[in-house]
Amino acid sequence: MDALTQYLDQNRDRFVEDLKSVLRIPSVSAQPKHRDDMLRCANHLVEELKRIGMTRAEVRPTKGHPIVFAEWMGAPGKPTVLLYGHYDVQPPEPLELWTSPPFEPVVRDGVLRARGAVDDKGQVYMHLKALEGHFKVNGRLPVNLRVLIEGEEEVGSENLAAFLREHRAELDADVIVVSDSAMMGPDQPTLTYGLRGILYTQIEVVGPKHDLHSGHFGGAVQNPANALATIIAGLKDADGRITVPGFYDRVRAVPPAERAELNRIFDEKPYLAEAGAPAPFGEKGYTTAERITIRPTLDVNGTWSGYTGEGSKTVLPSFAAAKVSMRLVPDQDPADLFPRFEAHVKSLAPAGVTVKVLDLHSALPFLSDTTDPMLRAAVRALERSWTKKPVMAREGGSIPVMQTFQETHNVPCILIGFGLDDDQVHAPNEKFSLSSFHGGTRSIAYLYEELAKAP
Amino acid sequence: MDALTQYLDQNRDRFVEDLKSVLRIPSVSAQPKHRDDMLRCANHLVEELKRIGMTRAEVRPTKGHPIVFAEWMGAPGKPTVLLYGHYDVQPPEPLELWTSPPFEPVVRDGVLRARGAVDDKGQVYMHLKALEGHFKVNGRLPVNLRVLIEGEEEVGSENLAAFLREHRAELDADVIVVSDSAMMGPDQPTLTYGLRGILYTQIEVVGPKHDLHSGHFGGAVQNPANALATIIAGLKDADGRITVPGFYDRVRAVPPAERAELNRIFDEKPYLAEAGAPAPFGEKGYTTAERITIRPTLDVNGTWSGYTGEGSKTVLPSFAAAKVSMRLVPDQDPADLFPRFEAHVKSLAPAGVTVKVLDLHSALPFLSDTTDPMLRAAVRALERSWTKKPVMAREGGSIPVMQTFQETHNVPCILIGFGLDDDQVHAPNEKFSLSSFHGGTRSIAYLYEELAKAP
Repeated sequence: MDALTQYLDQNRDRFVEDLKSVLRIPSVSAQPKHRDDMLRCANHLVEELKRIGMTRAEVRPTKGHPIVFAEWMGAPGKPTVLLYGHYDVQPPEPLELWTSPPFEPVVRDGVLRARGAVDDKGQVYMHLKALEGHFKVNGRLPVNLRVLIEGEEEVGSENLAAFLREHRAELDADVIVVSDSAMMGPDQPTLTYGLRGILYTQIEVVGPKHDLHSGHFGGAVQNPANALATIIAGLKDADGRITVPGFYDRVRAVPPAERAELNRIFDEKPYLAEAGAPAPFGEKGYTTAERITIRPTLDVNGTWSGYTGEGSKTVLPSFAAAKVSMRLVPDQDPADLFPRFEAHVKSLAPAGVTVKVLDLHSALPFLSDTTDPMLRAAVRALERSWTKKPVMAREGGSIPVMQTFQETHNVPCILIGFGLDDDQVHAPNEKFSLSSFHGGTRSIAYLYEELAKAP
Repeated sequence: MDALTQYLDQNRDRFVEDLKSVLRIPSVSAQPKHRDDMLRCANHLVEELKRIGMTRAEVRPTKGHPIVFAEWMGAPGKPTVLLYGHYDVQPPEPLELWTSPPFEPVVRDGVLRARGAVDDKGQVYMHLKALEGHFKVNGRLPVNLRVLIEGEEEVGSENLAAFLREHRAELDADVIVVSDSAMMGPDQPTLTYGLRGILYTQIEVVGPKHDLHSGHFGGAVQNPANALATIIAGLKDADGRITVPGFYDRVRAVPPAERAELNRIFDEKPYLAEAGAPAPFGEKGYTTAERITIRPTLDVNGTWSGYTGEGSKTVLPSFAAAKVSMRLVPDQDPADLFPRFEAHVKSLAPAGVTVKVLDLHSALPFLSDTTDPMLRAAVRALERSWTKKPVMAREGGSIPVMQTFQETHNVPCILIGFGLDDDQVHAPNEKFSLSSFHGGTRSIAYLYEELAKAP
């Protein structure tokens, strides 16, 4: 065992304690009440980056939540890596479903449980600990490194693009590394080469000018909650296909060999068990593996209208709303689809209501060239760490910053993540397996070594 | 002007102040936090009933909120009237839409604004003030009277039926009087001879065992919010007809002359203006007047699922629910319809979700014989008070206790109310016109006189 591997092995428990410290900070970017916690979290990361040996570690303000920046440029002639991560987390609600408080991390049976455990603080910390290993053992890193940890990933990375464009020169890099994705199984190292894009909207339906008595008015005026149901029901047909005209026009055909490989590496049984779904359900003509990787989809993320409290209130609500998001695949473009979606929603609305559609956020789909030397370096690092051939996968989620990096850098992007499908990302009881955390930390340490050898 | 009319006239302002006192008590039966306020309100009414001259005024406990009872039996040989009202009110939410706090009554431009102003505290107080007039001017009432004011009308009168059956003897009466209905216009005295029944349900749709990440799982498992929309959209067809099999089987045909009269007395323009609806909307083949009186209907009263906060959360919710109520007409029966509705909802559910349907409360439709001598007495009282012929109307709302009275008493029921369509009943900014309150008080005072003359 080399000295680096040994260091990582011997410091495992302390690494977990360090991660717990940052998980205790409720850095929920969506909720204004946590604004101070966001800054506290950014400062905490800066201190940690300085401590391990990074130079120029600092909190950089934006119009929203601040960005954490750090660099170490002591490897002339070697590639420069831009590491991207995020320190913000999803809202923890509904709180009553957590088995332990979301911001009081606990380890039980080899699993660390807390909001942000895997998305993305835990994965950011794999990098910090891998870097610490290099600095401690070798006094240096094998490559040049720039670190960018943002605080708005969970709310659409609204200020990141401007930051990247404004500071393009000091953020220059030969390769971008992101650890915000998952493995195809507990011991299956995975390199993600595709992500779905997203178009996240809000549909607002307004009927009567105020809530009405459902006895006096029921049956005589349009009910916006009924109207919204009609709209949502009309967005997909019986085969699970989205009815927005032109929605599938730009969907790129996927070669049979690639489809076969995506199906081969996917295990449906644990996936459905994790979802707690009695059966798969989705677009006709595609497997579950395909439905979540190469096919677009549409989901209601939330809906609200009228009286939702205890008992029965005989109200005809004046307003109904739903958050509706679409996951997109190459070469769909949310900018092209939003106006089509908006027009279609309005066309589905029955008479007697006014409909507004808001574009809350969007991201282009992402697809990498799996033959690129940088990606091959990542494959080698994973194989060294897990003594197993990694699989090449697509993921159903979106990492909006990928679109921005394509525009600002246009260099290879390595998506090397160690989450698991049952990690309850974005849900109560988010967790991170310690075996993934430690295996991931070792893989990342090797990744920086392997990238040093890439052309 | 007789002495009674004069008394009522001279004490108008004090009557309004007395009403304000009871409106300040937040007697919201649906919300457990107001349990003490409910008892406080019942005690307040008992004190008021004692003060004006009623005997045996007392708070009578039930398994839920208490009932207020009082009587005065000093008119042997005269009919015994059972007055029914309710002191509980609807929840005031959403609070931010009130122009003044719901439990701080204010009078402005001849309008009293507060939760309960007209439904039903204001209308109960018309009776209390009419009775006070009789006691002050004549030292007695023209009829025997039993007063029953319940605290659970807005939550389905769950304990009233048992109370009525248990105390049937001491609640015996020749006629029942209820003031919980509306006039067809500000100066149009109205006797209501029909009410719609109700079947109020809750549909709960469960999909995955916990909330999922919409990127990782979207497209591969059934989304309960989408499924609920499909169910709701399927409950009515394009003509606004309810699709539950057999739903219309027992709907009684209404004679053309009665339909013509219902249309004649109905003014659609102010009705729609009040609703703030751009156009009428409802079942094909019927007018607005008919849609809210002689036709059943179905409305979503509330719906909730997933993330409903600020911004965007990419969650695939595990649960979605809606409160859905149907208004029923003679001779529909909620006991017959609930199992049909439940089976139909389940048949509309797409695969991959579990659906539960709850029966939250129900009431039979109500229809009076307009030629009954007791109802003719009420017509005379209204004509005396308003110097105008009253109209005979049907109302779209439900008063569940009517069904119980039919079963326990089977005597004529007089529905004599003075609300207006724009009183924002069950909505923010509930109000009662002082001209209606005073005209109503006078009408009620005359009603007790006219009932004394009925056989």
